[in-house]
Amino acid sequence: MAATAPSAPTAPRITAVDTYDIRFPTSRELDGSDAMNPDPDYSAAYVVLRTDAGDGHEGHGFTFTIGRGNDVQVAAIDALRSQVLGRPADELCADPGTLSRDLTGDSQLRWLGPEKGVMHMAIGAVVNAVWDLAAKRAAKPLWQLLAEAEPEWLVSQVDFRYIADALTRDEALGLLVRGRQGAAERTALLREHGYPAYTTSPGWLGYGDEKLTRLARQAVADGFTQIKLKVGADLADDLRRIRVARAAVGDTIRIAIDANQRWNVDEAIEWTRALAPFDPYWIEEPTSPDDVLGHARIRAAVAPVRVATGEHVHNRIVFKQLLQAGAIDVLQIDAARVGGVNENLAILLLAAKFGIPVCPHAGGVGLCELVQHLSMFDYIALTGTTENRVIEYVDHLHQHFLTPVAVRDGRYTAPVAPGFSAAMRPESIAEFRYPDGTYWAAELEPRTQEPRTEEPRTKQKGAAA
Amino acid sequence: MAATAPSAPTAPRITAVDTYDIRFPTSRELDGSDAMNPDPDYSAAYVVLRTDAGDGHEGHGFTFTIGRGNDVQVAAIDALRSQVLGRPADELCADPGTLSRDLTGDSQLRWLGPEKGVMHMAIGAVVNAVWDLAAKRAAKPLWQLLAEAEPEWLVSQVDFRYIADALTRDEALGLLVRGRQGAAERTALLREHGYPAYTTSPGWLGYGDEKLTRLARQAVADGFTQIKLKVGADLADDLRRIRVARAAVGDTIRIAIDANQRWNVDEAIEWTRALAPFDPYWIEEPTSPDDVLGHARIRAAVAPVRVATGEHVHNRIVFKQLLQAGAIDVLQIDAARVGGVNENLAILLLAAKFGIPVCPHAGGVGLCELVQHLSMFDYIALTGTTENRVIEYVDHLHQHFLTPVAVRDGRYTAPVAPGFSAAMRPESIAEFRYPDGTYWAAELEPRTQEPRTEEPRTKQKGAAA
Repeated sequence: MAATAPSAPTAPRITAVDTYDIRFPTSRELDGSDAMNPDPDYSAAYVVLRTDAGDGHEGHGFTFTIGRGNDVQVAAIDALRSQVLGRPADELCADPGTLSRDLTGDSQLRWLGPEKGVMHMAIGAVVNAVWDLAAKRAAKPLWQLLAEAEPEWLVSQVDFRYIADALTRDEALGLLVRGRQGAAERTALLREHGYPAYTTSPGWLGYGDEKLTRLARQAVADGFTQIKLKVGADLADDLRRIRVARAAVGDTIRIAIDANQRWNVDEAIEWTRALAPFDPYWIEEPTSPDDVLGHARIRAAVAPVRVATGEHVHNRIVFKQLLQAGAIDVLQIDAARVGGVNENLAILLLAAKFGIPVCPHAGGVGLCELVQHLSMFDYIALTGTTENRVIEYVDHLHQHFLTPVAVRDGRYTAPVAPGFSAAMRPESIAEFRYPDGTYWAAELEPRTQEPRTEEPRTKQKGAAA
Repeated sequence: MAATAPSAPTAPRITAVDTYDIRFPTSRELDGSDAMNPDPDYSAAYVVLRTDAGDGHEGHGFTFTIGRGNDVQVAAIDALRSQVLGRPADELCADPGTLSRDLTGDSQLRWLGPEKGVMHMAIGAVVNAVWDLAAKRAAKPLWQLLAEAEPEWLVSQVDFRYIADALTRDEALGLLVRGRQGAAERTALLREHGYPAYTTSPGWLGYGDEKLTRLARQAVADGFTQIKLKVGADLADDLRRIRVARAAVGDTIRIAIDANQRWNVDEAIEWTRALAPFDPYWIEEPTSPDDVLGHARIRAAVAPVRVATGEHVHNRIVFKQLLQAGAIDVLQIDAARVGGVNENLAILLLAAKFGIPVCPHAGGVGLCELVQHLSMFDYIALTGTTENRVIEYVDHLHQHFLTPVAVRDGRYTAPVAPGFSAAMRPESIAEFRYPDGTYWAAELEPRTQEPRTEEPRTKQKGAAA
């Protein structure tokens, strides 16, 4: 499985694939609560690639999880170690696609998916770490590396297996060649104005009406033109909350609603129609992310409310079908759910071919940091537009990253630091590594003797600001 | 998450959830080789539930894998342990559906799927182990326990979330009530004649023409009316091999072909059409198991060759769509890919509603042992027929099971031993536990000093008979 292209024996190689189980105790504050996820502890199965190049560069990547099972995700990344160790760093960074194909095509690991779930997300973490390393070595933020890349090379990074019936290599190449026109102007615009964002911070299901109103107004004051509400647990509550939100933000601000897969197809249709008088901009994850045909039925039934999904769509093959079936109005990529940058390139190309806007899922741990690069590439070098495109923004856990996102006036500022913005602060890793980081060691120790306290603790507030 | 129904403090409970990483060195003989899986080491992430009932009964279950990553699968089962330990055994066995829903609905673990990949297969292993325990405690083979169960209770074991648009609870109940008519007669017929099988043993891609001819003729002599060939690596080879196989078995024996997901949609159509003159009965896994719309296109294009898939279809939601889209002629459940017996009940009910025959995937490690119970239930108490229905049979690794399948005259004999036929022999576990079983300890030790031998060893032959 090792790359076979020749490389000098002394060329730098990958010398370590180190993994970390990082967990933040977010469940204490109901940040991130929704109809399906009442008490998440936002976590990351985190991986660091090290080389013997002596240049100080490392590749960082991770899978986002919400707590239990983060150790399984770490074990899955560990299972990839032997296929990454020893690869020449120059070749790996010049062609992450080969590693991507080797890992997704590994005949034995493939059985555990194929291309879905724990094993596929592990591949995504490792592949994203390679892109982080490649961008650091190129001294460019990843969006810039991608936006300046030759179309031929970009196409070589895409696996067309199982999507060639919807998008051929030549069509993809054509989209990228066309996308370059005006790229320099758009790069300048991006650096000056950033990329539009929307915020989910006001709308978590665990928040009361007063907090919802206050945060929704704050969002508008902060320059956001779209907010999002979690819905799906109780229709009467949802009707009240969307009324409260609409009253807080007025008629010109878009309110997206998000059911987090709570409904069956028919429920989704009824519930969305009931909320339609408050003009929701899109209904997100109305049902199972696997249900292409269900989304198509929902979309036909709830128009003009748009249908959005993608954060749990497990690979390019399902996205292909959502597009082929006319099942979605908004495609929501996630930077760490699929097989990494390479598969997301395929998905961005599919969306461009079908003319469907991409509005990435973010939040979690570091997902905003990652996905901004993909949208910025899409704007500069593929679709050339930000019209009806917004990146999700949630204002928590950014303080744990070395180069956190900067959102100003409702827009993501273009990153300037080389890399994929994936690196966590060493002191955060030392504190929140599970179960032996300083936070968890202190937290888990007394719990065996005394009942769990009801009071949120200062430390937790700090963790989930 | 623990069951909340009252239970006497002294009632028996689950006291252990023990896991084992079992690997058989099948890659040495090319048993199981196909276009996507050239060198599988057939493996099982194996789980044993123990109670303090003092009746000696244990619940056994497993996920089948093909080698690397089996440890990840074991870690996933381990992640479920805390939700199973301490549950009252009586309640658990009287209602496995509650555990099934608790595990698939666990908000944090759900993020790792949802309902797909490593985490979902782990749930399937645990849920199947509960059914094994339940059937042993009821002193019935599982097929009989299911076939004698009340329709109302069976329906209570099914999760209709995300499938209610295709199959309501009332429709399912109606199918089961109708299915009971004549069940006693069919039970007698099953006990006397068994259930039809087909064999894949002749058709592995790694076998030469002489071995293919010999094994294909043997299959006919053994009473099989259908064999299967692996295809998809090289069209010229496939044309030669299907010609050889057709010459060996004559015109009346069905030859299924299996591409193991090797092709894109258009390739699948071209390749299948090229093989069509040799009258293949079905083309199995022509493309990605995720591609509902792709299978629909292939089916329309290759008729009268039937389209079959399912062994890698990850849950009932994808099966629902394959049926809704008219994408398949043959539905291939797998006993250990989805969330266990409960989800397979849902899938059998969906297939019955849509009138599509179920021909299970089997082979691997213990998959024949498990899935026979589901087909026999389907025959006796749901569809009432074996017409155009066959269970896959592969003749290897059965000697490792305490109650191995018995296939005579091309038919599975109805199991009589209580349980789900899932229990592996203790001496096989002791030998093939990885990496510390006696086989692997001896195998892995010298490999660090000397190069790997080319000769198959006596021990390996025994393992993969």
